[in-house]
Amino acid sequence: MIRIALDCYGGDDSPKANVEGAFDALKKLPELELILAGDETEINALVEEEAKKHGSDLKSRITVIHAPDVISCNEKPTDAIRQKPDSSMMKCINLLRTDPTVSGMVSIGSTGALIAAATLRIGRLEGVMRPTFCPILPTMDGGIVGICDSGANVDCDAYRLHQFAVMGSVYMKNAFGVENPRVALLNVGVEAEKGDMMRKEAYPLIAGNKNINFVGNMESRDLLSGKYDLVVCDGFSGNVLVKSVEGTAVSLLKKLKGGIMSKLKYKIGGLFMKGLFTEMKETLDYQKYGGSILLGCRKVVIKGHGSSNPVSVCKCIEQAYTAQTNNMNEQIEALLSE
Amino acid sequence: MIRIALDCYGGDDSPKANVEGAFDALKKLPELELILAGDETEINALVEEEAKKHGSDLKSRITVIHAPDVISCNEKPTDAIRQKPDSSMMKCINLLRTDPTVSGMVSIGSTGALIAAATLRIGRLEGVMRPTFCPILPTMDGGIVGICDSGANVDCDAYRLHQFAVMGSVYMKNAFGVENPRVALLNVGVEAEKGDMMRKEAYPLIAGNKNINFVGNMESRDLLSGKYDLVVCDGFSGNVLVKSVEGTAVSLLKKLKGGIMSKLKYKIGGLFMKGLFTEMKETLDYQKYGGSILLGCRKVVIKGHGSSNPVSVCKCIEQAYTAQTNNMNEQIEALLSE
Repeated sequence: MIRIALDCYGGDDSPKANVEGAFDALKKLPELELILAGDETEINALVEEEAKKHGSDLKSRITVIHAPDVISCNEKPTDAIRQKPDSSMMKCINLLRTDPTVSGMVSIGSTGALIAAATLRIGRLEGVMRPTFCPILPTMDGGIVGICDSGANVDCDAYRLHQFAVMGSVYMKNAFGVENPRVALLNVGVEAEKGDMMRKEAYPLIAGNKNINFVGNMESRDLLSGKYDLVVCDGFSGNVLVKSVEGTAVSLLKKLKGGIMSKLKYKIGGLFMKGLFTEMKETLDYQKYGGSILLGCRKVVIKGHGSSNPVSVCKCIEQAYTAQTNNMNEQIEALLSE
Repeated sequence: MIRIALDCYGGDDSPKANVEGAFDALKKLPELELILAGDETEINALVEEEAKKHGSDLKSRITVIHAPDVISCNEKPTDAIRQKPDSSMMKCINLLRTDPTVSGMVSIGSTGALIAAATLRIGRLEGVMRPTFCPILPTMDGGIVGICDSGANVDCDAYRLHQFAVMGSVYMKNAFGVENPRVALLNVGVEAEKGDMMRKEAYPLIAGNKNINFVGNMESRDLLSGKYDLVVCDGFSGNVLVKSVEGTAVSLLKKLKGGIMSKLKYKIGGLFMKGLFTEMKETLDYQKYGGSILLGCRKVVIKGHGSSNPVSVCKCIEQAYTAQTNNMNEQIEALLSE
């Protein structure tokens, strides 16, 4: 059995989406057991509701632990994790810290609080300097690209960048079946000598590691080209990168939508092109790949988007499950000890 | 008279677009004199051609200096500026360095070479630690936003960030008439305490300067929102930001275009929406605002896009002209000495 904790609060449709996603995952994965953290009365009621739909045998693989408190996205992470030990997130973190039979957790709550809590409380894998947060974006050719780090290491150095390349490679291979992931270093130009001091120092470290399929520097404009499987960066510029892709895409689609509504002929054109817009929206839907992983913790920690629906919650649970069945963390430790 | 040097090589349509743009600018600005750097024979022939169209009185305000060599975008900047003193770009730089009557220059050639050459050879304004490269992007509400720095300072510190805020504010006001420009600090979150050490140190410096209208931290996803006139960042993350906005926009529009061609009904829809796509393209056309300025040099240095047409070359010349007529550099020196 693989036991995973699910934080039932913090998302736009929580806890309903979380509990529904939990049942979807249990149905898909017969070796899965889930521990649901949230207000006991509320979560149990939702579990009963789902059990009626799906049959009560799935319910037998669920344990509910009482966590009446919620950490919101507006709270300062370091304060929240100290002041809210009874929150659903901290109850999960604590379980990962103390219970060796629980292998991972999923949360769709505050990213900052989750990164801080996991980093400070769960502990790192052998040899890991600091865990790294790795979201996945869809590329324009229908593939995906991982961005590592994207916020857990805003103050960074070349040695960490090298570790991100190792950990991210193992992740892309194990979680998404990417053989020999093409790893690029985010930089201001493609030439080997480009960049700030950190990048100039990191380049030979990554290039010199035979376990990394390093393809050189990448400019941010090529992120979605499909030429790279993993992009290595410090947490500050990685955060800038991910959010600006998201922001630009959202702004453009909003502008297009507003434009379509502005004139009758555009509205008619819009009707003809409805299928195309749906296709494009699907290409851009990063939630279908699951959540972002915090790599380098002793346990698997997956962060789903705050707007996750049951399908994406289920995907996140599958991600945590796969990482555990593939012994991803053991592989990371082995490669870092080389 | 205001005398400006124009590098006639380095763009996709150089030197033709450059010389045509020069005549457009001379027509608009009666107090302008231009020095055109390029192969004498080639440039003179183009000047004669344009003079036939526009009348030869404009020609009297043009001087051609012989510069047979070209610096390409594929050359290593520091090598190129040392090895090619006879290039059109270096001839302009040298003129700015030695001739007090020449107040600025425009180039649409290699950005890296221009930043390196200007920084190393022209010298800084009094009090400026290092010049900063500030491109302009169009926002979704039809306005613009400056990004400062976006590549000249890949290794940066809080004091420089503070200077970027000062210089960028003066620039947005003088070049684009933005009264009391709203200045934001690029960060991983909007809360005041967010960010890496550099940002935490820069925040109070910028917030404490009464000459800056500081509105706080900004996440990259809000760059195009129209809520900010100037975004302050280190050159590395600024470069990532600008190129990822550009890359995402180009990728999406390409995807949309490809999609439209894939099915008959989408093609029909596309015909109805042709006007809308043109409108959107115009909104996104950053070239209509001119080029990017290198702020903090003793002379005005404007970098136009490599794909500049005569209209954008003319815009860049106007930018250099306006900066000089408004005594922008004197204002920067005065504010930095406070």
